Amino acid sequence: MSVYANTRRAIALSEATTLPQRYYASPKWFQRELEAIHLNMWLCAGRTRHIPHAGDYFVRQVGNANVIITRDEQGEIRAFHNVCRHRGTLLTNASEGRFNGRIQCPYHAWTYRLDGTLANAPHMEKVEGFCEADYPLNAVATAVWDGHIFINLSARPAPFAQHLAGLDEKFRPWRMQELQMVERRVYHLRANWKLIIQNYSECLHCPIVHPLLQKQSHYMSGENEPPRPTYLGGRMDLRDGVKSLTMDGSTSRCPLRGLSSEEQRHVYYYCLLPNFFLNLHPDYMLTFTLWPRSVDQTEIICEWHFHPDEICKPSFNPQDAIEFWDITNKQDWELSELAQQGISSKGYQPGPYSNREELLLALDRFVVERVERKTRTWANTHVDNFAD
Amino acid sequence: MSVYANTRRAIALSEATTLPQRYYASPKWFQRELEAIHLNMWLCAGRTRHIPHAGDYFVRQVGNANVIITRDEQGEIRAFHNVCRHRGTLLTNASEGRFNGRIQCPYHAWTYRLDGTLANAPHMEKVEGFCEADYPLNAVATAVWDGHIFINLSARPAPFAQHLAGLDEKFRPWRMQELQMVERRVYHLRANWKLIIQNYSECLHCPIVHPLLQKQSHYMSGENEPPRPTYLGGRMDLRDGVKSLTMDGSTSRCPLRGLSSEEQRHVYYYCLLPNFFLNLHPDYMLTFTLWPRSVDQTEIICEWHFHPDEICKPSFNPQDAIEFWDITNKQDWELSELAQQGISSKGYQPGPYSNREELLLALDRFVVERVERKTRTWANTHVDNFAD
Amino acid sequence: MSVYANTRRAIALSEATTLPQRYYASPKWFQRELEAIHLNMWLCAGRTRHIPHAGDYFVRQVGNANVIITRDEQGEIRAFHNVCRHRGTLLTNASEGRFNGRIQCPYHAWTYRLDGTLANAPHMEKVEGFCEADYPLNAVATAVWDGHIFINLSARPAPFAQHLAGLDEKFRPWRMQELQMVERRVYHLRANWKLIIQNYSECLHCPIVHPLLQKQSHYMSGENEPPRPTYLGGRMDLRDGVKSLTMDGSTSRCPLRGLSSEEQRHVYYYCLLPNFFLNLHPDYMLTFTLWPRSVDQTEIICEWHFHPDEICKPSFNPQDAIEFWDITNKQDWELSELAQQGISSKGYQPGPYSNREELLLALDRFVVERVERKTRTWANTHVDNFAD
Repeated sequence: MSVYANTRRAIALSEATTLPQRYYASPKWFQRELEAIHLNMWLCAGRTRHIPHAGDYFVRQVGNANVIITRDEQGEIRAFHNVCRHRGTLLTNASEGRFNGRIQCPYHAWTYRLDGTLANAPHMEKVEGFCEADYPLNAVATAVWDGHIFINLSARPAPFAQHLAGLDEKFRPWRMQELQMVERRVYHLRANWKLIIQNYSECLHCPIVHPLLQKQSHYMSGENEPPRPTYLGGRMDLRDGVKSLTMDGSTSRCPLRGLSSEEQRHVYYYCLLPNFFLNLHPDYMLTFTLWPRSVDQTEIICEWHFHPDEICKPSFNPQDAIEFWDITNKQDWELSELAQQGISSKGYQPGPYSNREELLLALDRFVVERVERKTRTWANTHVDNFAD
Repeated sequence: MSVYANTRRAIALSEATTLPQRYYASPKWFQRELEAIHLNMWLCAGRTRHIPHAGDYFVRQVGNANVIITRDEQGEIRAFHNVCRHRGTLLTNASEGRFNGRIQCPYHAWTYRLDGTLANAPHMEKVEGFCEADYPLNAVATAVWDGHIFINLSARPAPFAQHLAGLDEKFRPWRMQELQMVERRVYHLRANWKLIIQNYSECLHCPIVHPLLQKQSHYMSGENEPPRPTYLGGRMDLRDGVKSLTMDGSTSRCPLRGLSSEEQRHVYYYCLLPNFFLNLHPDYMLTFTLWPRSVDQTEIICEWHFHPDEICKPSFNPQDAIEFWDITNKQDWELSELAQQGISSKGYQPGPYSNREELLLALDRFVVERVERKTRTWANTHVDNFAD
Repeated sequence: MSVYANTRRAIALSEATTLPQRYYASPKWFQRELEAIHLNMWLCAGRTRHIPHAGDYFVRQVGNANVIITRDEQGEIRAFHNVCRHRGTLLTNASEGRFNGRIQCPYHAWTYRLDGTLANAPHMEKVEGFCEADYPLNAVATAVWDGHIFINLSARPAPFAQHLAGLDEKFRPWRMQELQMVERRVYHLRANWKLIIQNYSECLHCPIVHPLLQKQSHYMSGENEPPRPTYLGGRMDLRDGVKSLTMDGSTSRCPLRGLSSEEQRHVYYYCLLPNFFLNLHPDYMLTFTLWPRSVDQTEIICEWHFHPDEICKPSFNPQDAIEFWDITNKQDWELSELAQQGISSKGYQPGPYSNREELLLALDRFVVERVERKTRTWANTHVDNFAD
């Protein structure tokens, strides 16, 4: 029996309106969101294949946290705050690179092993009570799901399995771990991160905004799962004759190994809250990670991943998929920026959701509940009553 | 009997000093000004001739309000908040253009008529209680005076006639409605909006700053009306032999129809508070609208308007007037920016006004009284006692 | 007996850790520092030789104070707030220049003598009670030490001799007044001003960061004076065969007149708090003045000064000293910026100072004590307990 539903119950106006302006325009509310959500939940940081060897690393910024994701000598994925324990210097200001067996601070040469322990701290021998074991790099929790690396900046991370909530089982046939990135595009949006998830979570705008997508996948074919505590997801059907989402709907690539013929007829759109979009096509995977920079700015890293058997074919050409989504992304980003501008302006007031925008309402509730948890309930907070 | 007076009474030092620093440097005070003044009073937005046909529009930003000014099917001037009632999207991000009979949101195609009523809201049929009549565009009050369009963002606008206070009668001979814009220049100043009005409201600086102007119109020839609640105005005499303010004081253009020979010997300088400057010359009209962007930034739209009978002459050349005022404007903007910098710096303390700066004192009182109205009186607030 | 000590006592961990994040990242704390330190202490502004003639001037910005430093008709150094007493206009927006006997406001021509008194205020004759003697430029205290000009923005400056604390005696042999600037470089750093002083106050980073310096002057040769209330200083030895700090350690310039052979074997590094670094080499003087611009931005003016007898030699070429320090400066600035980034990030926590970082600890205590004076003691404030 399918978990998806394309028929939604009717809703009443009083149940479902967009959030008041401050949730999209107040720097103070944004700071509360960072604390309650991004600095507290599992975030997708990137891919294990990005750092295949010991010492390979990349860096991610979350709020004011700057995190090194690396691989230690035993092959384990590790994450650390990018801050020396001596005088607080940034250990690296490159966005990615390779540590040569040790992580050495460029200022006074405090030196850490790839597991974060302090190996050497020059000139500290006359400090009574100083013990190197007391000064490892501050660690950040990590987890790996099928090639995706997750980090969690909380001191007490929720169990990762609870966060995944069975998605590992669900998407096992795609064998995502095998896939290799062939393209990365970074987009800088002037829009609140929630507007980007909202844009992702409904296709009512597709016939107006995305004529190319609409030609290959009908916007009303969208079937969603009921909203889950940690993810929002659904799938859409490819139109008859369309093999994948590409510039012309055809593809010369084989379907991913392990997919049923039924699975090859859909594109799956999942948002693992709060920062990861996973678009699974019959022949490739598209991932987005969202990095809120301010109440009205978000950086998005978008990557295209293909099967290595396809990549090594002389005829391999991913441009049909890259171009399709780059065009579609830019259409979405423009609309999200217009929404940010309108919602931030004096004329804005909360408007009514249709019954096909149920995932957006779920997102709004998720955000407000996470931030207000333990102090207020949804019913009280949906009105604009937090102090700015 | 003339309303103008070139002889001012002597004043005492204790009566008249400039305002304390915070009135020009505090973002919080600026926010209070926006609320009490710019979002509450009639603002000149532009000209009816700018939008001659149904659907023609231009956009103005006032504080955080983004306003579409357009013309409906009946030819009426209309203004709306540029925000869709569905999810708050900006309806247009062009600064001007033409709506094709309908205003359609680019996101989900909610569609409004040119009178602001909602014509179509797709996919809302399953929302119980939803009624299109409940979701018109949020309207902004409009008024028209002799070709000038005014908007008012207050929920209860003051009567427009009270705002004009008889200026329509006074300037009827100029027949401003007939005039056509031939040049627009937009200036971005790093100065508080009040400093620009102050600069406009006295000519003591003219012999030092404006040698070209001084050559054609003596700075002591300035005669002001006593300050009015909604405007500050005065006129200056053209020197003998000078026909208009142009690069050389001559003009090949005929005087505006309807002006008396007396009216042709003056230039009229009126500031309709808080954002409109009207400079009436014998043969052309110069208008400025001021758009405060922050406590220390103001955008100024300056337009030159001429009579269509002149414009259609093969010999018509407005450059003598354009260049004259572009030079003069830039001299004024530079001084206003120096004033902003000095007043914002630690060494500033309120200084004494001369008795020929009476319009500046009137402006200060206007601003403080509008902002403090109902809570404090001028006498109490002239000292620097608001909380920052 | 030398005041210097290269042997430091051992310290305990509990005595000496770096300051919490807010001292480097909070705009409010920065504002408190400006008030308590930069707007209250003697700051080195520049050199008397920069303004040799009456009316010569340069301008310095300290927090929101904009200060003109000039020379009056009697040859005295004077400093004034760069603000007209009439309507607050900036008197000059050049960074340096020459007043032609008078300081005239560019707006309405209020005119001041070079001693700051008001000479002429046009159109003020009808203001009852107005007296020119009441409106001099607002003065800023000045002092001169051996060619260095100091300013003090406090209403009650501490005695300058108390600030110098005997450094005038100590450095008399260098005859700094005779030296002439031949190069100025201005650096814009994204780092808190305290991090730049900290970087200046220890050489443990030298072997890692400054290979060229390390080759000419061993990092462990550093001998410091015990920290003083108004300055932190020390000296380092030139290695055998090294004549000065230049690209190759040699110099064709004669030693400064008056130096003993012992004094010619050291480089002296003194930080006169809070904004002046003085580097005295055998054959030249290097000066830095620090100008905090925000909690994480500092402007540094660095100048190279030589003896006029050397400058006038046909073979004079200062590039060996300029290039040496420009390279070394940029290495230091990069590290200071990395420290700013790391300390500002979530992973930062105070770390342990070694016993050779005693001047940094003294700086931290100086700053916190100056800011908290009269309300709290060091013991209480070293923990992160100020309100943000």
